[in-house]
Amino acid sequence: MSAAAAVSQSRQWDRLMTLVRLGAIPGDGVNRPCLSPLDREARRLVIAWAQEIGAEVSIDEAANLFLRRAGTDPDAAPVLTGSHMDSQPEGGRFDGIYGVIAGLEAITALHDAGITTRRPIEVVAWTNEEGGRFAPGCMGSMAWAGHTPITAWADVRDPAGITFGAALDEHLAAEADLPRRPLGYRPHAYLEAHIEQGPVLEAADIEIGVVTGIQGSRWFSVTITGASAHAGTAPVGTRQDPVQDMLRAITALNELTADPTDTLRFTVGRIDVLPNTSNTVASQVRFSIDIRHPDGAILRAKGDAIASTIAAALKTCRAEVKEHFNAMPVGFAAEVVETVAAAAAACGHSALRLPSGAFHDAQFVVPLAPTGMLFVPSRAGISHNPAEYTSPEQLAAGTRVLAESLARLAS
Amino acid sequence: MSAAAAVSQSRQWDRLMTLVRLGAIPGDGVNRPCLSPLDREARRLVIAWAQEIGAEVSIDEAANLFLRRAGTDPDAAPVLTGSHMDSQPEGGRFDGIYGVIAGLEAITALHDAGITTRRPIEVVAWTNEEGGRFAPGCMGSMAWAGHTPITAWADVRDPAGITFGAALDEHLAAEADLPRRPLGYRPHAYLEAHIEQGPVLEAADIEIGVVTGIQGSRWFSVTITGASAHAGTAPVGTRQDPVQDMLRAITALNELTADPTDTLRFTVGRIDVLPNTSNTVASQVRFSIDIRHPDGAILRAKGDAIASTIAAALKTCRAEVKEHFNAMPVGFAAEVVETVAAAAAACGHSALRLPSGAFHDAQFVVPLAPTGMLFVPSRAGISHNPAEYTSPEQLAAGTRVLAESLARLAS
Repeated sequence: MSAAAAVSQSRQWDRLMTLVRLGAIPGDGVNRPCLSPLDREARRLVIAWAQEIGAEVSIDEAANLFLRRAGTDPDAAPVLTGSHMDSQPEGGRFDGIYGVIAGLEAITALHDAGITTRRPIEVVAWTNEEGGRFAPGCMGSMAWAGHTPITAWADVRDPAGITFGAALDEHLAAEADLPRRPLGYRPHAYLEAHIEQGPVLEAADIEIGVVTGIQGSRWFSVTITGASAHAGTAPVGTRQDPVQDMLRAITALNELTADPTDTLRFTVGRIDVLPNTSNTVASQVRFSIDIRHPDGAILRAKGDAIASTIAAALKTCRAEVKEHFNAMPVGFAAEVVETVAAAAAACGHSALRLPSGAFHDAQFVVPLAPTGMLFVPSRAGISHNPAEYTSPEQLAAGTRVLAESLARLAS
Repeated sequence: MSAAAAVSQSRQWDRLMTLVRLGAIPGDGVNRPCLSPLDREARRLVIAWAQEIGAEVSIDEAANLFLRRAGTDPDAAPVLTGSHMDSQPEGGRFDGIYGVIAGLEAITALHDAGITTRRPIEVVAWTNEEGGRFAPGCMGSMAWAGHTPITAWADVRDPAGITFGAALDEHLAAEADLPRRPLGYRPHAYLEAHIEQGPVLEAADIEIGVVTGIQGSRWFSVTITGASAHAGTAPVGTRQDPVQDMLRAITALNELTADPTDTLRFTVGRIDVLPNTSNTVASQVRFSIDIRHPDGAILRAKGDAIASTIAAALKTCRAEVKEHFNAMPVGFAAEVVETVAAAAAACGHSALRLPSGAFHDAQFVVPLAPTGMLFVPSRAGISHNPAEYTSPEQLAAGTRVLAESLARLAS
């Protein structure tokens, strides 16, 4: 019996639906912030399932969680797979968590099929990929890979004012019973399964996306400072209104980022106004910029023009622009890409090579190991939304290809 | 000795500076939300000061606070004066609270001068004039005047999610020791002292503003609903992004409300984005509209055009527009206006007749009694801002004119 044949569609689906209950929100969505009590409950479930097949559990100082299935050669570099377990504040049921549960299902299938691999296989759940509670995202994988020390974000605050440092300390204390491992190592290969979060696979009626690389992302925060004034007495012509200057700034950024091919992604998803009361001209506005492109040169040029574009657009206020996330585009390793393509063929699943529009933890593993990803379809391309959906059959197909790929990479 | 001569500049200033400590924020500002513990502390101070001169204290079911100095004729309708004690979230030291402390200083001066009036004089502190914690403002005076029942706002929530109904219940329980009076009555006259919150008096180097009326205000809340999507995968051309449609809506409203005379005031002071995370296209945006004009016909026409202007501006989302405050312009009673003008002349203070750009509780007393207001200058016209300033001398001049006016109206 092959690992792929031992993958259980129902076990995987049941586990996903069990996890959905932790942080369920209306419309089949999930709100499970990283380092929250809900996150810890979900991790305990995953740990218990991993222990059922004798996997060894450990965490590192960034709270990344590892589930290790031993190989026959204890000195061989492990094959690493996994994703993240945190969700967007109004997220779906599959983003991230699928990659962790698929990794667990893959090693469970190997266990059930009685297959031993030469190399160990480790399943990882990276901390804070979404950046929904603490920005930016991918803190766990960035810290693990040596891209940025975890202490760099200690003072980042969530909307309730709690710092990332305090939340991480609380979390590590709650998991003090788990063995601790150091950050980082060089795996033999890294392969992450994920939902596509885009419309391409569904539109082409294809079961497996063989991911060739990830477009680059840059995140900025913009603070526009004006002067609060009375909405009834201050003539409009005398105001320094940061809301109105934000309008001018975003309008200018829309022009800067306009792309006839609709490849560049420009998003203002967060706006915070001070004091945010209806009869006072605001004193300050903060907003986020998320800009992405698969071409590093374009991403660099457009991103570098943001501050000057905003400065030129303002009429009465002053602006401060800070970049706080910068992930240049990456291409995945041919050996992992080809392994996934071959595994899909071996499993009899249709496959298509495509780049990733979303960033993923995989991006930060690239410097350490041959890296790749595989996608399963997202209904209507919807993600970061309660309506996110991939069928049990589609999820199982992805996990079969993952299990087959891991077996090959670990042999 | 006249009441005006008995007004103590230092006592009034010291009381204001004592109150400033309750909710002090950087830059000499104040954040003292209505119905908060700080608000209650401030009220207890004012009550204690009123009791020093034997004033009778009572509250009504809207938590409006009354301090009554008896007249010689117990059956005569009282003369009413006062203002509010709540502040904007980033407010100044004089907005509202000056009118309460000036009223208290006026009856204290009458007391000190040994003057008895035929009519009682009552000093009122109206609940929630600012609308900073619970929108709209002027709830206390609206409820008192029979404009709107206080229960109408029971479900309005503050930014922390607490309802106005719950906050009011908690407040009334904390003041259960104070005698309760019914809502509303017909005073002989109402006169409110306030800082100008505009630049006119300072620019003209005038001590007293004799207020002739108040411009009209209309408040709306706009909800734009789109569809959340992944910032990295959703092509810009496929999005229903409510942030982008809000830009279009406000741009169109700027055109609708453009006024070459700079008389119309249009403000978007509050914006709330859902889910408000940087890497997700928003699902919903809510923003406030505050529009004001001294001409009722213009205010009616522009306000009535808001919903259709927004609907026409949207490209991909849908909008819901709700009006939740509508105060048409009012003119003040000649007898009160002339009394203030005559009192200013009697006190030797320069005076100028002018309309009010801000709305005030006085607006809602107009249907019940001859009503007026007097203004003292605001430095640089600044208000709703920690930099709000009126000098001790200017405040005392206003209170002398108030005391003289009240003595005349109550005789």
